[in-house]
Amino acid sequence: MTQPDQVSIREVGPRDGLQNEPPVPAEDKVRLIDALSRTGLARIEAVSFVHPKAIPQMADADRVWAEAEKHPGIRYSALAPNLKGVQRALDAGFAEIEVVVSASQTHNRANVGRATEESVAEFGPIAALAHERLASVEAIIATSFGCPYEGDVDPARVAAIVDAVTEAGADRIAFGDTTGMATPRRVDDLLDAVDTDLPVLMHFHDTRGTALANVLTALERGVTEFDASVGGLGGCPYAPGASGNVATEEVVHMLHDMGIDTGVDLDALIAVAETAQDLVGRRLDSGVLWAGPRTRLTPKP
Amino acid sequence: MTQPDQVSIREVGPRDGLQNEPPVPAEDKVRLIDALSRTGLARIEAVSFVHPKAIPQMADADRVWAEAEKHPGIRYSALAPNLKGVQRALDAGFAEIEVVVSASQTHNRANVGRATEESVAEFGPIAALAHERLASVEAIIATSFGCPYEGDVDPARVAAIVDAVTEAGADRIAFGDTTGMATPRRVDDLLDAVDTDLPVLMHFHDTRGTALANVLTALERGVTEFDASVGGLGGCPYAPGASGNVATEEVVHMLHDMGIDTGVDLDALIAVAETAQDLVGRRLDSGVLWAGPRTRLTPKP
Repeated sequence: MTQPDQVSIREVGPRDGLQNEPPVPAEDKVRLIDALSRTGLARIEAVSFVHPKAIPQMADADRVWAEAEKHPGIRYSALAPNLKGVQRALDAGFAEIEVVVSASQTHNRANVGRATEESVAEFGPIAALAHERLASVEAIIATSFGCPYEGDVDPARVAAIVDAVTEAGADRIAFGDTTGMATPRRVDDLLDAVDTDLPVLMHFHDTRGTALANVLTALERGVTEFDASVGGLGGCPYAPGASGNVATEEVVHMLHDMGIDTGVDLDALIAVAETAQDLVGRRLDSGVLWAGPRTRLTPKP
Repeated sequence: MTQPDQVSIREVGPRDGLQNEPPVPAEDKVRLIDALSRTGLARIEAVSFVHPKAIPQMADADRVWAEAEKHPGIRYSALAPNLKGVQRALDAGFAEIEVVVSASQTHNRANVGRATEESVAEFGPIAALAHERLASVEAIIATSFGCPYEGDVDPARVAAIVDAVTEAGADRIAFGDTTGMATPRRVDDLLDAVDTDLPVLMHFHDTRGTALANVLTALERGVTEFDASVGGLGGCPYAPGASGNVATEEVVHMLHDMGIDTGVDLDALIAVAETAQDLVGRRLDSGVLWAGPRTRLTPKP
């Protein structure tokens, strides 16, 4: 198979992970971000700027970001659901913003209370504002591989949204596997349908065990950017007890074994996964957290 | 990618799974095997014939097999560590026997108390006996992708064992990922090294999240037979708390999504995984068990 020399991992535990866990104090969030900043990770999604009634876990985003260490060379980003959130993220000093829109109409209404087309239509003003403030905007297309309410999502619909947000000024595209419905076949189908010159990132959940198979498929198709969540923080809000975000240490472990550079110190990352587990006080679903990397040996009998 | 139309799954939950769980009553084992026989699975590893002091969980193998339903068309098999176990399996009426040998010297000594070469040397008499009784013998090469004591295992060593057991009369070869050290890269490396005309099966654990990525890699290389354990029964004896055998329903779920036929009724299989979970009384690590297949929708909000 063809494979890249390097892969860029974006750590989303502090945002997408903690947003789906019981609330954690601001100082613990800061501690988590700071610990992640010391692992060699090149990108960290730090917080989101959403209405505190919608997601109380992120109500302290300003404080968390103000207190977190900003390491030179790390690309920190914030997520926002709309123009107002983007404004707040820019005011907080973020130079990378992610704006989420769901390919599924039902999911977009459930997630941000409006039609997919309304979210897409706001991309123009969002991109204009961000660019004016010298920030970049990524369009995260949620439910790209399927919707928990609607089922399969037509890749052509996702491709049309890519075209629309690109036209509106998006700088990057991310495909969100919001509830773990991606499979190798769906990754292939999506990449067959989408035609873009923008940088592409994939965000997989491991809800049904396919996350690393999806990463492998995407790698073979030339994708070199992936989201992941330390320790698999976050779980799956749609299936209590099931896994959510793929664990960063599992992605890094597989990539390093393939000889692909991520810049991450795997042992340091596993130590942060242990911290994350203590922080949320529940068993996290990460094989590499529990078993260690394949190079960790058992004493001879 | 190239992919087969059909894949043959061998269910190993009743043997490899239950062998690594606290002891379960014989009647529950029979119930599990009978339930699996009704899911469309074409192959089931039912029991093993090992010394009851070594593995007390399998001490009732004769009784379990005597009481289990034998469905026409299903290939039932038994595992044995040596000639004596093979004799017992043949006496019990099995027509398919698996004999395990570890590529790692240290692991073979820990597992069956002798050198790899001694296990390999017994393959001649084993194959002769089995063939005389009109049974076939599969060589399972454990630690094919790495050893928990020794670390990496040279694929050339595995290839040499394949040659030796083939020469001795083995009818099939299985590569065992005994402690979840297989990765896509290791699967590729092994298949680069091995040259065989015998049917090849791969047995993956999901200890570090790579199981389905390994299946995908093996599929691309032409492998069409896989072991899996319902519900992921078994865990990992070398890493308490970590996952063991890849869950059968996760393998079937991914393959069916790719349009690959396994003959298995996925819903029926998930129901058996629920039974298996009740039977061992602990949470089983299977995403498809917890979240259901990707086609299982959430009621619209």
